[in-house]
Amino acid sequence: MPIYTPPLRDMQFVLHEVLGVSDEFKALPAHAEVDAQTIDAVLAAGGRFAAEVTFPLNTGGDAQGCQHNPSTHAVTTPTGFKQAYAQYVEGGWAALSCDPAYGGQGLPLVLNQCFYEMLNAANQAWTMYPGLSHGAYACLHAHGTPEQKKIYLPKLTSGAWTGTMCLTEAHCGTDLGLLRTKAEPQADGSYKITGSKIFISAGEHDMAGNIVHLVLARLPDAPAGSKGISLFVCPKFIVHADGSLGERNAIDCAGLEHKMGIHGNATAQIMLDGASGSLVGQPHKGLAAMFVMMNAARLGVGNQSLGLTEVAYQNALAYAKERLQMRSLAGPRARDLPADPIIVHPDVRRMLLTAKAYAEGGRALSSYCALLLDKEQQHPDEKVRQASSEMLALLTPIVKAFITDNGYEATTLCQQVFGGHGYIKESGMEQHVRDARINMIYEGTNTIQALDLLGRKVLGNNGATLKKFGQLLGQLAQEAGTNRSMAEFITPLVELGEQLTPLTTEIGLRGLQNPDEVGAAAVDYLRITGHLVFGYFFARMAQVALRQMAAGNADPFYPAKLQTARFYFARLFPETATLLHRVRAGSQTLMDTDLALA
Amino acid sequence: MPIYTPPLRDMQFVLHEVLGVSDEFKALPAHAEVDAQTIDAVLAAGGRFAAEVTFPLNTGGDAQGCQHNPSTHAVTTPTGFKQAYAQYVEGGWAALSCDPAYGGQGLPLVLNQCFYEMLNAANQAWTMYPGLSHGAYACLHAHGTPEQKKIYLPKLTSGAWTGTMCLTEAHCGTDLGLLRTKAEPQADGSYKITGSKIFISAGEHDMAGNIVHLVLARLPDAPAGSKGISLFVCPKFIVHADGSLGERNAIDCAGLEHKMGIHGNATAQIMLDGASGSLVGQPHKGLAAMFVMMNAARLGVGNQSLGLTEVAYQNALAYAKERLQMRSLAGPRARDLPADPIIVHPDVRRMLLTAKAYAEGGRALSSYCALLLDKEQQHPDEKVRQASSEMLALLTPIVKAFITDNGYEATTLCQQVFGGHGYIKESGMEQHVRDARINMIYEGTNTIQALDLLGRKVLGNNGATLKKFGQLLGQLAQEAGTNRSMAEFITPLVELGEQLTPLTTEIGLRGLQNPDEVGAAAVDYLRITGHLVFGYFFARMAQVALRQMAAGNADPFYPAKLQTARFYFARLFPETATLLHRVRAGSQTLMDTDLALA
Repeated sequence: MPIYTPPLRDMQFVLHEVLGVSDEFKALPAHAEVDAQTIDAVLAAGGRFAAEVTFPLNTGGDAQGCQHNPSTHAVTTPTGFKQAYAQYVEGGWAALSCDPAYGGQGLPLVLNQCFYEMLNAANQAWTMYPGLSHGAYACLHAHGTPEQKKIYLPKLTSGAWTGTMCLTEAHCGTDLGLLRTKAEPQADGSYKITGSKIFISAGEHDMAGNIVHLVLARLPDAPAGSKGISLFVCPKFIVHADGSLGERNAIDCAGLEHKMGIHGNATAQIMLDGASGSLVGQPHKGLAAMFVMMNAARLGVGNQSLGLTEVAYQNALAYAKERLQMRSLAGPRARDLPADPIIVHPDVRRMLLTAKAYAEGGRALSSYCALLLDKEQQHPDEKVRQASSEMLALLTPIVKAFITDNGYEATTLCQQVFGGHGYIKESGMEQHVRDARINMIYEGTNTIQALDLLGRKVLGNNGATLKKFGQLLGQLAQEAGTNRSMAEFITPLVELGEQLTPLTTEIGLRGLQNPDEVGAAAVDYLRITGHLVFGYFFARMAQVALRQMAAGNADPFYPAKLQTARFYFARLFPETATLLHRVRAGSQTLMDTDLALA
Repeated sequence: MPIYTPPLRDMQFVLHEVLGVSDEFKALPAHAEVDAQTIDAVLAAGGRFAAEVTFPLNTGGDAQGCQHNPSTHAVTTPTGFKQAYAQYVEGGWAALSCDPAYGGQGLPLVLNQCFYEMLNAANQAWTMYPGLSHGAYACLHAHGTPEQKKIYLPKLTSGAWTGTMCLTEAHCGTDLGLLRTKAEPQADGSYKITGSKIFISAGEHDMAGNIVHLVLARLPDAPAGSKGISLFVCPKFIVHADGSLGERNAIDCAGLEHKMGIHGNATAQIMLDGASGSLVGQPHKGLAAMFVMMNAARLGVGNQSLGLTEVAYQNALAYAKERLQMRSLAGPRARDLPADPIIVHPDVRRMLLTAKAYAEGGRALSSYCALLLDKEQQHPDEKVRQASSEMLALLTPIVKAFITDNGYEATTLCQQVFGGHGYIKESGMEQHVRDARINMIYEGTNTIQALDLLGRKVLGNNGATLKKFGQLLGQLAQEAGTNRSMAEFITPLVELGEQLTPLTTEIGLRGLQNPDEVGAAAVDYLRITGHLVFGYFFARMAQVALRQMAAGNADPFYPAKLQTARFYFARLFPETATLLHRVRAGSQTLMDTDLALA
């Protein structure tokens, strides 16, 4: 039987002891009253919801999947999903970090981030239904007309309705400039939208009263390519001006995809046949408007893999403690048992600690990013908002790609701890791998994230934001000073930081001659920065732990954090040695391969 | 629609141009007449069988799986599997490399290896039914009594019957010393076997007239642990002395496992309720006898992932050439199309070339090992047989673990090339990943392989066999001499070789103080040796290509080989930089983690 215990103590450590969020909140008028007690109470309740309501539905949802009725176009979600969603709405969870102006509770986004980590760990497929709504909410909140906001935001806030992102078409995923769906202006100011979309997560289901589709389409006068794309809101049921539901809109689910994982989520083929919609934002500026949603979604995808990493780790750890097999190489440990628990074996520990370190690094980074989001939205000082926004833009592709690549590795390793039993569905371990696999693909493949990071976020501003991150490192190094206990963490970090600057310049210069040099370096470069960022947070976590231990705190939690940080720097951070080799290898051995790839 | 083209030219390159197998065969009386023409003809016919008969059943077999009837204990394989097996038997494929004394064709094992690569690429789940038979055949051929050989070997040779390995029980996989199945001697010299086994691949099915189970069990007087295990042959239907089938034996399939992949193969729970069997080999020496089967199976598992790597690569390459998305960063290539094919992007090439290089390196190594097997069995000179056996023992865990780890990475990358479409079952790509996943687990997890390599095969003989492999490297370096074209391959190889000797000594010394040092180093050590071995074969392949080009051969096949070798050394071989860091990190950061893993 799979298990899941919300990692509340670890979250509290990151939020209170590492990031000091309550102090940060004091500078944000909207959240100035949010203290540690409130945060802990919300997380505890959120953890209970995840562990008790959605987690028990996870393996059943995978086995059962969603059913599509070709006659009615209706989709039935797995047993229990609808009831769990009703509990979610009733508990006010949808409204947690939404704007009070639309009925939200107005709590910080970093709280919602931690709540969603637990939801994702418990049941990623279920969590995608409410998760997509957050993106639609954020997009309409930023770009909707007053009337759109009035109609849609209260319903999305309460969770009465859910949302989707309708971007992809069969011939275009990454390259949205190729999309063909058309929007015809009508006399009443509305639009009739016609086309077909695929891969629409939570695109049709039986859990909510209405579905708010945000659809990319072309206006008749649209320029070709990505500069001719507009965004429309297109509800499943037409909504009257008074908010009441009208007739069924001409937007239907033509079928569901058969996928490797996330079976409990309906991945819909959506047909629009003159569906009625209204324009969101400016004509032809749809991609920019949609990016509000996409950036949030990218952080959300990183959070999905964070959750899966944690739950896979917890199960593998429990199994490693109870499964008896072979004796420790260093001599029997459990002499009264027929064999030792497999946790005595160094390589089993390597697999477990890899998952644990990836979970802890991912949690620190994701929480930091969510806090940046709170500051970007709520800080009274424009400069702080701007700086937060820039740092978040730099870190978003790292959250998306680094955490999801790590999550696939971690869930695979945790499955491996189970041996043959991990390959059997009943253990629950192989589902984590299958679910985690999509996170490297959707919301922009991890290659796209790497190009975004290196091309746009780093070279695009001459490394200015990266240098600001470097200043954080410098500050930490200064704080550590001559503290020898911190040297094992600070030294490799500083060394890597010192290599990164000339490396970046070198790629930039080579890229001026040949843009493929950037494309060839991007994926490895992202993983280097990922380790730089994780390393920074591991060093900060170690700093907190060392301070507590120096102050006489005997809680074993702190030396445990140190052990994980040491493992990380000894075994995972050194991946950078190979990554640096690869980046320096340049594009030639990739591009001069026409004969090999003939 | 998934595609598969047997890689005949690549196989011919390895067999004839790199390994020169026909010349090697001249020294083996049994195979002295096997020339290149015969080999090519057999491979072409074998490739047709794989591509035309079993490949079309692959995705259907995955979707349908096997059905177990709880009343009759019968298992029905997916539609078409039985008919394909009948064709396999009729075509004489089962007998390809079996002993003519039992009706075999007596062709070299290296041919069978190449044939099985194609079968695995086409349909791993199907291939496991005949594949397991080869292990049972080899085990009985080596350890069976004359009567057992007479009864079973002709039927296993023709394929009329199939075989299994019944080792694992619910509480013991790796640690067979814990097994509980009992064998009671009977007055007539037979045994009644009682117990339950799990994870028995091809354990029950409807494809053959009988199933020859090789079962590990304990005799009443057996010492505890792994020294008290005996091996029995226990057929599904009792076989009379004249070879005719008798009554149904008390060995039944109690159920099938629900697995992540290889759905078309029946993974059976086997109940033995006083089943009649006969002893194979000496009492209490069952593990040693079973190891004949296990070593062959380990090579076979590497071959499974080699096949999956090749088929995944072929499909990803085809998709990358036809899928239009975005423009080349270096400027549009296909100006008359709405976008460029994604193969123009450096990172798509990285993914494709990684799979290609892993396939080509794996093919060279696997073929080399199969040739060693032929020499071990057929060479007239005892010293050559012994040397072949030792080298094979060294390389077997590398074949099993390195090729299967690479295969999982490669199939995952090839799936990634498809973007969202790779996550959908219809593309066929996610099945390769799910199928490839088991290969890292069964026949000894990859951690067990690493411990076998470092503990037994390297440190166990003070590095003697590893040094012999080093001599092959030295010989190649000498042949390359001052040839500048070879330097890019030879230099990194020699550098790694020079680091490996002191590293091995260092681990050995540390391991004397603390055996966990060996356990902590083993997995990374195996990957280092894997790259050394792959690097060696890539250098040899480059050597052949360079010689052909220098001789004026204009076939683009040769520069293509060079391009792949260059990619391998630029992008994959440098993984050793990180692996060396990790091995040197020692066991402390793994073992001093009791608090972190509390």
